Amino acid sequence: MTIQQKMLAEFIGTMWLVLGGCGSAVLAAAFPEVGIGLLGVSLAFGLTVLTMAFAIGHISGCHLNPAVSFGLWAGGRFPTAELAPYIAAQVTGGVAGAAVLFLIANGQDGFSLAGGFASNGFAEHSPGGYSMMSVLITEIVMTMFFLLIILGATDSRAPAGFAPIAIGLGLTLIHLISIPVSNTSVNPARSTGPALFVGDWALSQLWLFWVAPIAGAILAGMIYRFFDKPAEN
Amino acid sequence: MTIQQKMLAEFIGTMWLVLGGCGSAVLAAAFPEVGIGLLGVSLAFGLTVLTMAFAIGHISGCHLNPAVSFGLWAGGRFPTAELAPYIAAQVTGGVAGAAVLFLIANGQDGFSLAGGFASNGFAEHSPGGYSMMSVLITEIVMTMFFLLIILGATDSRAPAGFAPIAIGLGLTLIHLISIPVSNTSVNPARSTGPALFVGDWALSQLWLFWVAPIAGAILAGMIYRFFDKPAEN
Amino acid sequence: MTIQQKMLAEFIGTMWLVLGGCGSAVLAAAFPEVGIGLLGVSLAFGLTVLTMAFAIGHISGCHLNPAVSFGLWAGGRFPTAELAPYIAAQVTGGVAGAAVLFLIANGQDGFSLAGGFASNGFAEHSPGGYSMMSVLITEIVMTMFFLLIILGATDSRAPAGFAPIAIGLGLTLIHLISIPVSNTSVNPARSTGPALFVGDWALSQLWLFWVAPIAGAILAGMIYRFFDKPAEN
Amino acid sequence: MTIQQKMLAEFIGTMWLVLGGCGSAVLAAAFPEVGIGLLGVSLAFGLTVLTMAFAIGHISGCHLNPAVSFGLWAGGRFPTAELAPYIAAQVTGGVAGAAVLFLIANGQDGFSLAGGFASNGFAEHSPGGYSMMSVLITEIVMTMFFLLIILGATDSRAPAGFAPIAIGLGLTLIHLISIPVSNTSVNPARSTGPALFVGDWALSQLWLFWVAPIAGAILAGMIYRFFDKPAEN
Repeated sequence: MTIQQKMLAEFIGTMWLVLGGCGSAVLAAAFPEVGIGLLGVSLAFGLTVLTMAFAIGHISGCHLNPAVSFGLWAGGRFPTAELAPYIAAQVTGGVAGAAVLFLIANGQDGFSLAGGFASNGFAEHSPGGYSMMSVLITEIVMTMFFLLIILGATDSRAPAGFAPIAIGLGLTLIHLISIPVSNTSVNPARSTGPALFVGDWALSQLWLFWVAPIAGAILAGMIYRFFDKPAEN
Repeated sequence: MTIQQKMLAEFIGTMWLVLGGCGSAVLAAAFPEVGIGLLGVSLAFGLTVLTMAFAIGHISGCHLNPAVSFGLWAGGRFPTAELAPYIAAQVTGGVAGAAVLFLIANGQDGFSLAGGFASNGFAEHSPGGYSMMSVLITEIVMTMFFLLIILGATDSRAPAGFAPIAIGLGLTLIHLISIPVSNTSVNPARSTGPALFVGDWALSQLWLFWVAPIAGAILAGMIYRFFDKPAEN
Repeated sequence: MTIQQKMLAEFIGTMWLVLGGCGSAVLAAAFPEVGIGLLGVSLAFGLTVLTMAFAIGHISGCHLNPAVSFGLWAGGRFPTAELAPYIAAQVTGGVAGAAVLFLIANGQDGFSLAGGFASNGFAEHSPGGYSMMSVLITEIVMTMFFLLIILGATDSRAPAGFAPIAIGLGLTLIHLISIPVSNTSVNPARSTGPALFVGDWALSQLWLFWVAPIAGAILAGMIYRFFDKPAEN
Repeated sequence: MTIQQKMLAEFIGTMWLVLGGCGSAVLAAAFPEVGIGLLGVSLAFGLTVLTMAFAIGHISGCHLNPAVSFGLWAGGRFPTAELAPYIAAQVTGGVAGAAVLFLIANGQDGFSLAGGFASNGFAEHSPGGYSMMSVLITEIVMTMFFLLIILGATDSRAPAGFAPIAIGLGLTLIHLISIPVSNTSVNPARSTGPALFVGDWALSQLWLFWVAPIAGAILAGMIYRFFDKPAEN
């Protein structure tokens, strides 16, 4: 594939991740009586990745996430030269997803960005009031496991074709655990989209959701190399 | 397969989509204390497609949706000559599904079509009171992504056999996001079935749920062609 | 495989279906504050079949249900000679599952079979008070679609290996729709197990949950034969 | 693979099982208004296994559970010499998962281990107040079926590649049924992690969650051997 085709795929996929994941949170999570809750939001985030991994995996590898690109790079699976164009496409896709979501959400009386617009945060902006240290540990550890799942499920020794299921439902699982702590990022592009609309605290806390996921992902890339070693004879 | 076999498959499948998807909404969503909520309805709609795609995918391709037929046609994957018979089978299947659901639902004291019978609508008939413009954008964008998932997951370069999972759970995801906005259509046949029973506002707003899904689907067909281009040498 | 191996597999599988499906309903559906609701029960029933279809599909075909055996027989996929031993194994398995569930449930103060023990019923014993006619239509139509999914997903033209997912999640879908109507049977063995413990109304209404599922299944077997016809040359 | 690679994989996987499964219970189950409930916790436990089975199945077989190792050993699928190192890695992984969870949870004002920290228990420490006998039967029977699913889905006659889905969703199903009874163990390593932090009753009841799962697993290993017998000629 050409780099233009890969970038368009990453743009579309990350737009879908933010529109679908954050959209389910903003539009449907707390709908009266029959809202989908955090379980529905967790499923939605995971399914954005599952669906796109089947749809565009053969085009770009379907990273949709700067931390994933860094983690695959650290694991020796992704070329340095493609890091910058992938991340550019992911971030602009994330912003586009947030923009479309804003257009839709704004068509309801009483909608306000002050509700948080699915931004990530810590301390007083953590959904459950968790400290910055809790959020930092959570984002590092969750992204580390996310990348271990990705590196393992796309290993040539794993069953072929199933990686989108493992990875998508892995993201669902991560949300089931950690929405109350950090609103769950593990993805700097996902955090950047809504933060640009909310501004203020969401922008000033955004650094953590770039640093922690990328750190966790690189850690996983280094750990997984231990499994690449052939058995000694 | 003969066109009669394909039409019967599309009829059965679309009947199942409306009976199962709208049925879960009408019968089970708001059941006291233990109702399945919008999450359960989202899962039900997706599973109608997942199950039928495995059951009749080898017979008709399992479109179950005029927008899907148009989108595949726009992507160069479906012959013009079969558009009309497919759509006829889908619409009659959708009406048959709504009819069976009416028979069942009517056996409970106090049932009334005034509850909406899972029809799609905008403005005062949007579940969350979203404007016509929000509903229009939602239906165009959601159907566009639905078709991108379908075109991608059935691409010969995608892993074989998994498309029903990607497409079915993709429809679940779309419902997780957009039931509060439009009650989620992305499918003119699904909208037509209940609307014929409810009449009134459901019929007068039905045009949007034909125009927007088909527009979004054709848009996706045109976008996906960009990924068909071979890499330059 | 020997018929003894097949019968043991059907016994184990149907025991799991009743213990798991009815067990989730009796033990967990209405647990205070965090109960799994009808959505969780629907998922549980489907997962009993999904898990067993992967576990024993290669031994007995994993019917777990007299209606499935009859439907496959009507579709020309199952020999007449094995109908009786399969159904005997299924019914005894269903009773064994209900017995283990009774032992477990009885260890909680205040447990009573008067709560229904997940039995199926109509009219005043329908969860939502649906008429006998509604329940009859529901059980016939739901079992018909269940068998269409089974016959389609196990067709040699469908993708290999995925049938347990289609069939298991198909049963989840059927429960998402119809628990409020009939408490969902589509399976005479599943209905018989709890009814023997509850006695009274559950036994006197049991006939419907033998007649309707088997009728719907045979109907599906006859319909699906239309898809077996080769295209005319 | 070397035994060191296998042990690291079991350590990582069991850490994920406890961090993810117990983490979803401690952090998200009862979150106000939109908590994931027992259904979300059930899904989370299952997805820890599904994701790790795809990620490290090719390295260690992904047992993550002393009962699974014993059950596979009883079924003739796992060498005696690897039992001890596997179980050591699993238990230390489970403790590590509980430790990380404690670090995260402790960053919320008002967190207390007195809430149970997702420990398993019986009688007054059973979530629904079930007797020791109910809990004992539940843990034996649930683990027996868990191992039957594992032995069946990994049988060479079962469809290749799907075992992680069957096994992971099998664990989800087991939780859907039995959280109210025993808080669901079926895994001594999962029980040991939180119990070491809670101490007191959780430690004094821990014996049951070693004895019952291992007994049930060995029982399954013996039953499944019946299916290994070739058909008589």
